[in-house]
Amino acid sequence: MRAEIITIGDEILIGQIVDTNSVFISKELNKIGVQVYQITSIQDDRVHILNALKDANERVDIVLVTGGLGPTKDDITKKTFLEYFEDKLVENKAVLQNIKTIFADYVGRKPLPSNLEQAQVPSKAKVLNNLYGTAPGMWMEKNKTVFVSMPGVPFEMKGLMENEVIPRIVEKFNRPFIYHKTLLTYGKGESQIEDLIKEWETALPSEIKLAYLPSLGRVRLRLSSSNTDELLLKQAVDSQMDVLHTMLKDIAIGYEDESTIQSRISEALLKKNSTLSVVESCTGGRIASEITEIAGASSYFKGGLIPYATQLKCDILGVDKAIIDAYSVVSVEVAEDMAMKSNKLFNTEFSVSTTGIAGPTKGDAHDEVGTVCIAVAGPERVVSEKFNFGNTRERVIGKAVNKAFEMLLKEISKN
Amino acid sequence: MRAEIITIGDEILIGQIVDTNSVFISKELNKIGVQVYQITSIQDDRVHILNALKDANERVDIVLVTGGLGPTKDDITKKTFLEYFEDKLVENKAVLQNIKTIFADYVGRKPLPSNLEQAQVPSKAKVLNNLYGTAPGMWMEKNKTVFVSMPGVPFEMKGLMENEVIPRIVEKFNRPFIYHKTLLTYGKGESQIEDLIKEWETALPSEIKLAYLPSLGRVRLRLSSSNTDELLLKQAVDSQMDVLHTMLKDIAIGYEDESTIQSRISEALLKKNSTLSVVESCTGGRIASEITEIAGASSYFKGGLIPYATQLKCDILGVDKAIIDAYSVVSVEVAEDMAMKSNKLFNTEFSVSTTGIAGPTKGDAHDEVGTVCIAVAGPERVVSEKFNFGNTRERVIGKAVNKAFEMLLKEISKN
Repeated sequence: MRAEIITIGDEILIGQIVDTNSVFISKELNKIGVQVYQITSIQDDRVHILNALKDANERVDIVLVTGGLGPTKDDITKKTFLEYFEDKLVENKAVLQNIKTIFADYVGRKPLPSNLEQAQVPSKAKVLNNLYGTAPGMWMEKNKTVFVSMPGVPFEMKGLMENEVIPRIVEKFNRPFIYHKTLLTYGKGESQIEDLIKEWETALPSEIKLAYLPSLGRVRLRLSSSNTDELLLKQAVDSQMDVLHTMLKDIAIGYEDESTIQSRISEALLKKNSTLSVVESCTGGRIASEITEIAGASSYFKGGLIPYATQLKCDILGVDKAIIDAYSVVSVEVAEDMAMKSNKLFNTEFSVSTTGIAGPTKGDAHDEVGTVCIAVAGPERVVSEKFNFGNTRERVIGKAVNKAFEMLLKEISKN
Repeated sequence: MRAEIITIGDEILIGQIVDTNSVFISKELNKIGVQVYQITSIQDDRVHILNALKDANERVDIVLVTGGLGPTKDDITKKTFLEYFEDKLVENKAVLQNIKTIFADYVGRKPLPSNLEQAQVPSKAKVLNNLYGTAPGMWMEKNKTVFVSMPGVPFEMKGLMENEVIPRIVEKFNRPFIYHKTLLTYGKGESQIEDLIKEWETALPSEIKLAYLPSLGRVRLRLSSSNTDELLLKQAVDSQMDVLHTMLKDIAIGYEDESTIQSRISEALLKKNSTLSVVESCTGGRIASEITEIAGASSYFKGGLIPYATQLKCDILGVDKAIIDAYSVVSVEVAEDMAMKSNKLFNTEFSVSTTGIAGPTKGDAHDEVGTVCIAVAGPERVVSEKFNFGNTRERVIGKAVNKAFEMLLKEISKN
């Protein structure tokens, strides 16, 4: 079965926000075997919304709409749904109570008339309870297609998806299983990889789709398929993936799971009851920031230092000035010393360090823009490597962070 | 004139990547007066691509397509363009030379046949030179609508937009001016704001559109309009914005410009030749990371410390243990001491500190999840505030980072 996601809001079309709602919804739908056929972003405009609903009705079995449900005048989704479904508004007591409770418990003032109006819902709608906000979700049907309307606030939309929408889809529709498995590789370009695996790719069964996803120094190779028999599906994809993995064993570093590399690092550290610190020069706190996004990070992550100015590497961290003078601040020697001193300063078992030139100018270093040295110090050894990540600041930082996580996971898993 | 953006790639529809290309393209088009009417994301599927091109042809004047131009078999955009335009491939000498140069200079190996095939382009296409990759852009026309095809790699797409696509659109189309101005407010919800400004909003001329954008503790209010006369357009929007700003002066903190709050902090520091450090506990490096994304940050940003474990606040930073014992680790007193000690440790004039409970569990603090204290220490004074940012780790961190930047900019601008 097929779904379409429609995200409504001028802010998307003028590039003022990034539409992350459709990423979340796509992932959740995939998990329950619903294929997202199209994502459509449109303006807060009556005619445009009506056209988009009509077009989607012809393409898919279920349409998930986000946005345009706020209490202010620029939000017109509910009004337009009324028109599309030829319906009228009725007051919903449960929603009214929810609005009053939210205002009493969290907002600390009386709801305004515009807030209370959010309890007016289309009479044909099945109301979906929004735990985190005043705008309810709506589930409506027309010409055998289901239309779901949810608020655009990501937090509220996520709650509605998890508690209301997904369970209802699971109950209503027969769905196949969809299965993706993605191999992470580094060190070769996509055309080189294709050349290496071309015989296997040509012989790949037509129901299994291969995709190449190059990004910031890595190529991800995804196999995707769907089947009503989950066991057969997974066996078919896994066995092809095993062949692919074997062919690419020199450049493969593992699979991309639901869990990110950060959460795999988290699991590995928790499993060995170990601790981590970071010292980031050119990555400027991004590694620490991504580590601490994970709940429970405080049980293994002790802290980080960002010695952006060279002198601070010596003053606070205690890096040997002679090493910097001998090898330059961007060197594997300095990176290694930074990582080792970080374990000392923070009293940790593992540490990762970065020192490099993100650009666009070279600062006080001798090397070219894009040069980054990364080291990981563990209880038994220190490893380091020097890279050139090319140009543009954003890409250099992004590639350095990816590489640092790869090296760190490898060392933690090894020791 | 109207544009549609079509992003092609299964990875978008399964939620494996966030489509940031359409954000960039939307912004760039807005700047030159092109309204983005719709963004459509579709699968790497021949029929689907053909349908999307056909539908877009009826809706808009120009269609910008990204994705599906790689050298591997899963990329079918060029082939499908051939079919849609009833065209055939011809070799383009300049593209062939570009491919050879890129391989010789950057890749360090000979191009494979699949790489060289990227020099085959539709005969009716005007080829757009890709400085950063081997897949050229294409500019084609059908039924008076322009179709532009660009690679999906953000870096390559950006180069093509800037160097090739935007100049050609500017030359070919008559465009009005589009103007957005966004006021940043904090402390009141969107319905309260609407209630405060309702008379003014009702009297707003119909050609000026007001949008409410609530997010992580802030509401942004955007006025948008377009006109062929740039001066009249800006005067009309600016004068309405002045009225709005005056009405909301107690909660307004300024305008959202092209420049982010981070770059405004950067400018303010450069202007006074001042320096900055950060000490982040609950925000875990995110503030430093966003500061160092800006090129040239090293001239004012000296460094940061992430004393995630409480003890480190004393050991490395020198926070007085008695203050922690007396007020708890999440307190304005500790935040203030952290910020002052940070200026000492990093030898800076300004410092911002965060200490709080991002959740989901409380750790070693007494306060509720979501409690965050933020302090800014400058040459003349220290300011601090205690917040409750509610629940979910992601939101607490996000709101704390936003608030820290607001407080920091205010202090730097004041002193």
